Amino acid sequence: MQEIDFNTRIRRKAQAVNFALKRILDFQETNQELKEVLGYALNTPGKRVRAVLVLWCHELLKGQVDHNAEMASAAIELVHTYSLIHDDLPAMDDDDMRRGVPTCHRVFDEGAAILAGDALLTLAFEVLAREIDPPAMALKLIGLLAHEAGPTGMIGGQMADLRAEKTECDKKTLEYIHTNKTAKMFRCAAAMGAICGGASKKQYESLSEYGMKIGLCFQITDDILDISSSSEELGKTAGKDVVAVKCTYPAVVGMKKAQEIQKNLTEEAIAALKQFGKKADTLRQLAYSLLERTK
Amino acid sequence: MQEIDFNTRIRRKAQAVNFALKRILDFQETNQELKEVLGYALNTPGKRVRAVLVLWCHELLKGQVDHNAEMASAAIELVHTYSLIHDDLPAMDDDDMRRGVPTCHRVFDEGAAILAGDALLTLAFEVLAREIDPPAMALKLIGLLAHEAGPTGMIGGQMADLRAEKTECDKKTLEYIHTNKTAKMFRCAAAMGAICGGASKKQYESLSEYGMKIGLCFQITDDILDISSSSEELGKTAGKDVVAVKCTYPAVVGMKKAQEIQKNLTEEAIAALKQFGKKADTLRQLAYSLLERTK
Repeated sequence: MQEIDFNTRIRRKAQAVNFALKRILDFQETNQELKEVLGYALNTPGKRVRAVLVLWCHELLKGQVDHNAEMASAAIELVHTYSLIHDDLPAMDDDDMRRGVPTCHRVFDEGAAILAGDALLTLAFEVLAREIDPPAMALKLIGLLAHEAGPTGMIGGQMADLRAEKTECDKKTLEYIHTNKTAKMFRCAAAMGAICGGASKKQYESLSEYGMKIGLCFQITDDILDISSSSEELGKTAGKDVVAVKCTYPAVVGMKKAQEIQKNLTEEAIAALKQFGKKADTLRQLAYSLLERTK
Repeated sequence: MQEIDFNTRIRRKAQAVNFALKRILDFQETNQELKEVLGYALNTPGKRVRAVLVLWCHELLKGQVDHNAEMASAAIELVHTYSLIHDDLPAMDDDDMRRGVPTCHRVFDEGAAILAGDALLTLAFEVLAREIDPPAMALKLIGLLAHEAGPTGMIGGQMADLRAEKTECDKKTLEYIHTNKTAKMFRCAAAMGAICGGASKKQYESLSEYGMKIGLCFQITDDILDISSSSEELGKTAGKDVVAVKCTYPAVVGMKKAQEIQKNLTEEAIAALKQFGKKADTLRQLAYSLLERTK
């Protein structure tokens, strides 16, 4: 039997997330205008890495996907999609393109984009509250997702990022921003998969650490790609981070050092999986694929 | 013993909400910049009507405030505050003043205002997930709040409102907007108080109906005040809704008819409280005070 290549495996897994998102959206009794914006935002092509991470961490422990894991993966993708919409707004990163297509506020308008983001964030918590069983698991997932996405997590990082554009950026600020705005959502995804899979404390901590490390690596790769890629390859306006003197790894520690940190993070992520043996090979491949990605 | 006047009673109750909000904010481990924006947003003077509604509906059933009700009231105020920040943005209502002080994006900037709103919304769900006990009650509150604030509720109404500015507004659209963007959050507040107070199905439905009716009345009063008040009295830019040809009751059904609908809604709200007898007098007073408010 021919082995399926890794990118195909991710794509197939992402399809399951897309179906879940479509079902959630179809179920919403709202006006046509809002549905259209939400549909556009959720159908924008994407690898669904965070959502797939939920599913694979769950599978590692349980062997197969169940409804809880599927809904948890949809919830984190809803939060991620909202964060992209708001991040692309003129008052934030001011991006016209995302994943190769025009951003939400360019296709519709800023007001619609703000509201669509708000809707997706709110919806994520409704999905977890209504679809996850038992209640104790639902509450753990909601508390965690809100914590990692809120002021002590992603939003804290976004605010620091916004402010850093106006000042000199040092390594401490850089680490704070990348950890909070990006890595914590990866940690959250891995931890959500662990919670759905009934992880022991030790398993939970290992998977969380793995998530955090690949999340940091992911953001450094983003920084590097943004400099070295053309807009067409990247699917968004390339070189923007340098123009805006953003707080990035290549800008602060230099390209060579940034690549070294990337590799170390990937190795640390792999090391965190030790207790799972060969069963965690998919997660190992994921770590390598994020290191080597070209867009 | 001299009876305390009703406005003083609301103000005292609102103080309890303010303390809860301050505790929640103090507890957040985030950067100073974000804390400052959140602090400004949460300290903007306000009557905290929705939060007080949670507390009074709970008290009606339980006799006194407990931690669950306090946290539920804080959560709805967090959501309400976020909705005001985003609603005031240039891409939405474009308001410079709110509750007599400059709006969040005027004091800071648009990016900070967007992020602060996102943070408060996320925080509301974290508070409910972490602070409410038992878990089944927490999940009911989260599911309800997300439903009423999300695409099938407040955001649905906001989007319809945004779109209505560009087209002719009929009575059906007007009712959809007011029900969704305003009344459902009042219904939600009353229902959250009912859930915290362990309401029976009948009690829950009556309080929800009461909340919906006073919420609709509240929005019509807003529409009327916006036309008849000066900016100074109202604390925000008056007359804006008429300038922008917004979908309001006075604009669509005329001032006289709008006032008639207001009174009917208040009577229906009072009627919904029948089963509670004299114990519901505070809620009756609240309904009248919202009808008669001048700002």
